[in-house]
Amino acid sequence: MSRPAHRRPEYHKINKDLFVLTYGALVAQLCKDYEKDEDVNKYLDKMGYGIGTRLVEDFLARSCVGRCHSYSEITDIIAQVAFKMYLGITPSVTCNNSSRNAFSLILDKNPLVEFVEELPAGRSSLCYCNLLCGIIRGALEMVHLAADVTFLQDRLKGDSVTEIGITFLKKLDEKKYRRKK
Amino acid sequence: MSRPAHRRPEYHKINKDLFVLTYGALVAQLCKDYEKDEDVNKYLDKMGYGIGTRLVEDFLARSCVGRCHSYSEITDIIAQVAFKMYLGITPSVTCNNSSRNAFSLILDKNPLVEFVEELPAGRSSLCYCNLLCGIIRGALEMVHLAADVTFLQDRLKGDSVTEIGITFLKKLDEKKYRRKK
Repeated sequence: MSRPAHRRPEYHKINKDLFVLTYGALVAQLCKDYEKDEDVNKYLDKMGYGIGTRLVEDFLARSCVGRCHSYSEITDIIAQVAFKMYLGITPSVTCNNSSRNAFSLILDKNPLVEFVEELPAGRSSLCYCNLLCGIIRGALEMVHLAADVTFLQDRLKGDSVTEIGITFLKKLDEKKYRRKK
Repeated sequence: MSRPAHRRPEYHKINKDLFVLTYGALVAQLCKDYEKDEDVNKYLDKMGYGIGTRLVEDFLARSCVGRCHSYSEITDIIAQVAFKMYLGITPSVTCNNSSRNAFSLILDKNPLVEFVEELPAGRSSLCYCNLLCGIIRGALEMVHLAADVTFLQDRLKGDSVTEIGITFLKKLDEKKYRRKK
């Protein structure tokens, strides 16, 4: 009898609903704590940043992704590997400028808002899922990539899709990373 | 060609680490908000209660558990079906009294504290995972079972195991539920 060698341990997963409801409790608590939406947004981003800095090491170890050679490649990995691994969804990616340093992740489905029908009353500027932006920002910073990450559209605010914008802030030296042919 | 009929949709799962770190952020926020540990504990329990009341319907629909005939059976389902489904662990169960209405769930592993080495400084009475007690209490109340649910032991406090005590508060009329032979 033989067993497959070098089998990676299965990633421990938990039920999504428990996470989504716990996240809702966190947002509700912050809305109780901070009167202004922008303060709640800022705090969610800050919390997310801390989470991102801790998640990234584990992500790199488990995903086995290699070195990226362009911002486009990095964004594809965020969408296709990281979102899939952590939230079970795969946003589509668009490039937003000719400098190829600004991208959008378009989320058809957003598990975090599954129990949320609309934003709380008087909270029209709340970025309910801003934790996600902070996580992406924190994780990127840990691999020495500075980026602005914000919600550009949000279904909870009546937009037709949910869109996270990522703008990389430094020129990536693509030559340095050019693959050897 | 045929497909299996009545196949239940797979339960959507997400990565555990994301949940555990988000829960940590929630507890940290509450510690910032409330000076006294007992207030943080109370608030976590209250939040959990709200989550439990929302999770239970989905749990009953998906788990397909039938009517229970004793408190012992109910506790087994919490440990073997609910904990497994939501946190991916199966606590062991002990009965703590001769009236058979007080039970303990013994958690060998507790995913919620995986990134927590010790309680925050000056927070020695914090029940870090008290959300779980609230969730169990809330879910039970939705099926008309009043219960006290508290942490009896906690590894984070130096105990050798983590133990959640569940005491059912009303006499269950077992005759009423006796199975027909």
